[in-house]
Order: sequence, then structure tokens, then C-alpha cells
Amino acid sequence: MRQITIDITRWRGSDFEAASDELVAEEPLEVRLRDGQGNARSLAVIMRTPGHDEELAMGFLFTEGLLRDRGEIAALAAGLDEDGLPSPNILDITPSANAVLSRRVEDGGYSRAFAVNASCGVCGKNSVAAACAAFPTVPVGAEAVPAQTLYRLPEQLRSRQDVFSATGGLHAAALFDLGGNLLAVREDVGRHNAVDKLIGRAVLDGTLPLNQRVLLVSGRMSFEIALKALAAGIPIVAAVSAPSSLAVEMCAAGGVTLVGFLRGETMNVYTHSERIR
Amino acid sequence: MRQITIDITRWRGSDFEAASDELVAEEPLEVRLRDGQGNARSLAVIMRTPGHDEELAMGFLFTEGLLRDRGEIAALAAGLDEDGLPSPNILDITPSANAVLSRRVEDGGYSRAFAVNASCGVCGKNSVAAACAAFPTVPVGAEAVPAQTLYRLPEQLRSRQDVFSATGGLHAAALFDLGGNLLAVREDVGRHNAVDKLIGRAVLDGTLPLNQRVLLVSGRMSFEIALKALAAGIPIVAAVSAPSSLAVEMCAAGGVTLVGFLRGETMNVYTHSERIR
Repeated sequence: MRQITIDITRWRGSDFEAASDELVAEEPLEVRLRDGQGNARSLAVIMRTPGHDEELAMGFLFTEGLLRDRGEIAALAAGLDEDGLPSPNILDITPSANAVLSRRVEDGGYSRAFAVNASCGVCGKNSVAAACAAFPTVPVGAEAVPAQTLYRLPEQLRSRQDVFSATGGLHAAALFDLGGNLLAVREDVGRHNAVDKLIGRAVLDGTLPLNQRVLLVSGRMSFEIALKALAAGIPIVAAVSAPSSLAVEMCAAGGVTLVGFLRGETMNVYTHSERIR
Repeated sequence: MRQITIDITRWRGSDFEAASDELVAEEPLEVRLRDGQGNARSLAVIMRTPGHDEELAMGFLFTEGLLRDRGEIAALAAGLDEDGLPSPNILDITPSANAVLSRRVEDGGYSRAFAVNASCGVCGKNSVAAACAAFPTVPVGAEAVPAQTLYRLPEQLRSRQDVFSATGGLHAAALFDLGGNLLAVREDVGRHNAVDKLIGRAVLDGTLPLNQRVLLVSGRMSFEIALKALAAGIPIVAAVSAPSSLAVEMCAAGGVTLVGFLRGETMNVYTHSERIR
């Protein structure tokens, strides 16, 4: 299942209506290595669109230098989840008898920490709620932001993207106050990095949580960016392009208003539309 | 320095000329944690556009749940490279006396493995050559591909991107033979994943190295994707959008032909233009 249909609120100018939208599916895949005793250790958790999961795991291990050849693997199979049922989001790898794969994993110092990094907190869990639990839910205040304020944000961001206009190669992220005033812009070749730079500024200035702010990103809205917004307590996040399904789940559970396809005087509101009037 | 000017070959139809192009800068930032004895352990290597590096490190540590407050850090300073000189690509963090940051790192199982994952092999090194050294250089064969063959690739990819057209949320990657025939397409919410799926298919089929193949990606060309192509021995990689500076360095050093902005009958050739005629 690579796409998902959900209910949204579609805005055009000052009108809005209930609508449905197609989202690309994003779910965590945990890749585990089984030993001779049947124990499984986590090698990585990869946020991915389900489908071709065995290929994904093989390509990941090969390009990480852990796997050189198909012959080093005896079996690939769905792993068991916490309830003992085969999970579509866990792939267990059984090395062949020579066990060169296991040795490379040991030599490379791969460990549980690997999964911590890759997963942003969803390692081995099939539940977004578990990831959210690490951060407090963003409370819904009395204030709501006019749609017209949000419509004006992308143009403000574009006017400040100096490197992008020269290279076409940068992601940008910006923080606004609830009145739509631009406070800070950061650009980076990595979309997560631009958001980390904004939040890091707030850490340095001691201004967290950012509960009176709107975050805008120039591209798509991934799960990781939604999680970062939740960590910083940002109530409204907006993207010029599409969100992933897991980003929507995350924002729904965490109390974050998620806006996508913010272009001209149109937008899709995926979660917590009560903050927009 | 957030952008870099380099020499390229610009093609329009069957004509080409030497030109220059602006690239977004991409370099590794190693974030290290110093202990009381002055030793530094690597927490992460983040591929980023230089600038606002302290913010990036703070935001990364905060959203990873390792840092809660500015007060947990006593000092931020450039770390020393292998020659004992302060490096713009190493940031050393000295925790404050209560050392809660160090404890969280221990408890979380953060270790050298973390850096292995984040860096794709450039941990703590300022040299792309060191990253390339893990994989053999792609040899230049007698064959060269006509520009007209490359011009036809993006349209073939688009015609197969079924989920993208519904959701607008997917990255795609495709493998072609040297005659421009489409062999496989993979889509994923993560751009690396789409490439890993293609390479993983080759691992499963035992068809590596992919030295008679062209790789096309729907978006930008990052360092990590270039590194994956090199690992798989792919001689020509093309992107519909911009490459990063480190992707260009990587392809130059690894013998890979890198094409960017492949649109209509135009393209920029950044490295090893001898494979295109």
C-alpha cells in the first residue's frame, strides 16, 4: 500500500470545504540481523514507502559496506512484532553459515545506537503514538490564525532565499510569528538541517518552546520534520509541497496543525484545522 | 561559503560548450562531545551546507532528545583536525559541570556507530578521497552515450511514476541501459531509499557491478546518492535538478559521470564528460 486516502480541509481564498486527499505512505522498516540462537539485533530503522522492502534492505546494507554478495545471506523473512505476529515493518536477515555479515557488523561497531539515529524514536514500534510520547502534545490555545496570513508566508520565504535562486539546490525553512511576520530563515542542502538550525537558534537563545510560531518548509513535509516541530512545541507547520502519511499521523497525535500545498491562495489542512480561521 | 563556482560542460541539443555553474556547498560537520580529560567522542556527522553550524548542532541534539537546555553546555568551539588545526567542519561541545548531556549520550547508547551511519564514510575526515577509497573507481570504457539518449530519460521516468502523479510526494529513481532503455523504476518518500531499492535488486539478482547502466533520480543529486552509485559501479548518474558540491567532488574522484538539470534537450555535465558524445 503505497498511498493512503484521508479527510482534509481544502481552502481556496476565504472558503473551505471538507475534501479527501491522496498521501504517499511512509512507515518505518526495521532491519534486524538474526544470530544462530534465533536472537535478532536491530541494524537500522529506515523511514520508507512500503514496497520492495527486501531490495531496500539489501541496497542499504550493500552501500553501507556491510554486505558484498547475496550469498552472504541465508534467508530474508518478516520479523515478529511485540505480539509475536509477523510484521510488515520488520525484516529479519539470517546470515549464511560463514557469517561474514555478522563479523562486519561487529567490526563496524553497529549497535542499537544505529537504530536510534535512523528512526527518530520509532525503532521497532509500529505506533506513532510511542514516538510522540517523548514530547508533550502542543496545546490548542484560544488564538487562531487567519488563512490570509498563511497565504502570505511562501512569498516572504522566497524573497529571502538568496542561495536557492543561484543554485536551485537548497531547502529552506522559516519561522514566523502568529501575525505572519518573518523572524528567521535558514537554508541547507539537507531539509532536516534547515529546521534543526532554526530550532538550534531557539535553544541558544533560550526561547523554547516555540508555541507562538509557525514553521514553513520549502519542500515536502516528512515525518522527521513533523517530529522536530513537535519537539520544539511549534503549533502550526506548513509546507509548500506534500506531507507524508506518517507526518500527518504524527501531527494529528501531537496536536500540531499541518498545512500542505500552500500555494497562492490555496492550501490543504491535514490536521487540527481549528487553529485556522 | 554557501555556494561554489565550478567549470562544467553545458549541452543544448547537440551543441556543447564550456561554462561555469553555481553549486550549493555541502560538507560534513562532525559534532563531538568532550569529556573532562579533553578527549572528544564523535556524536554525529551531518552532511550540511556550512553556516549556522552551532545552531545545527544544537537543534540536532535537542530534537534527538539528548539536549534539553542551553545551560547543559559550557562551551562550543571548533575541534582540531588530524593535523592539530581548528577545523571548520568539526564542532566540539563541552558539557557543563552537571554533565547531564554526557549521561544521556551514555544511556542512549550513542557511540561511534552513530557517526558511521550518518556519514556514509566521511566521519571526521575532510577529504572526499577517503570516502571514495572504500570503493573502486569506475573505469572509463570505450563506449560513450549520445546526448540524445540522455535527453529521453526523464520522460520515460515520468511516464512510470504512478504514485507521484496522485500524491506529489515521492522521489523516484530509475536504471537504464546505455541505449537509454528503462530497466527498473523505484519510488519512495526517501530519495536514498529509491536508489537503495534499485541497487538492492541488483544484489538479489547478482548483477553487480552495474557498469553498463545509467542512474536517473527525479530530484537533486546529494553526496549520499553519488556515493551509492559509486558503490554499485554505475558509470553515469543524472538528476533532473541540481547536484551538491560534494556530489560533484565525489563523482570527479570516483570516475563517475555526473549530469544535472537534465530537462528537455539541455543538461549540465559536471564530471567526466568524456562518456557523453
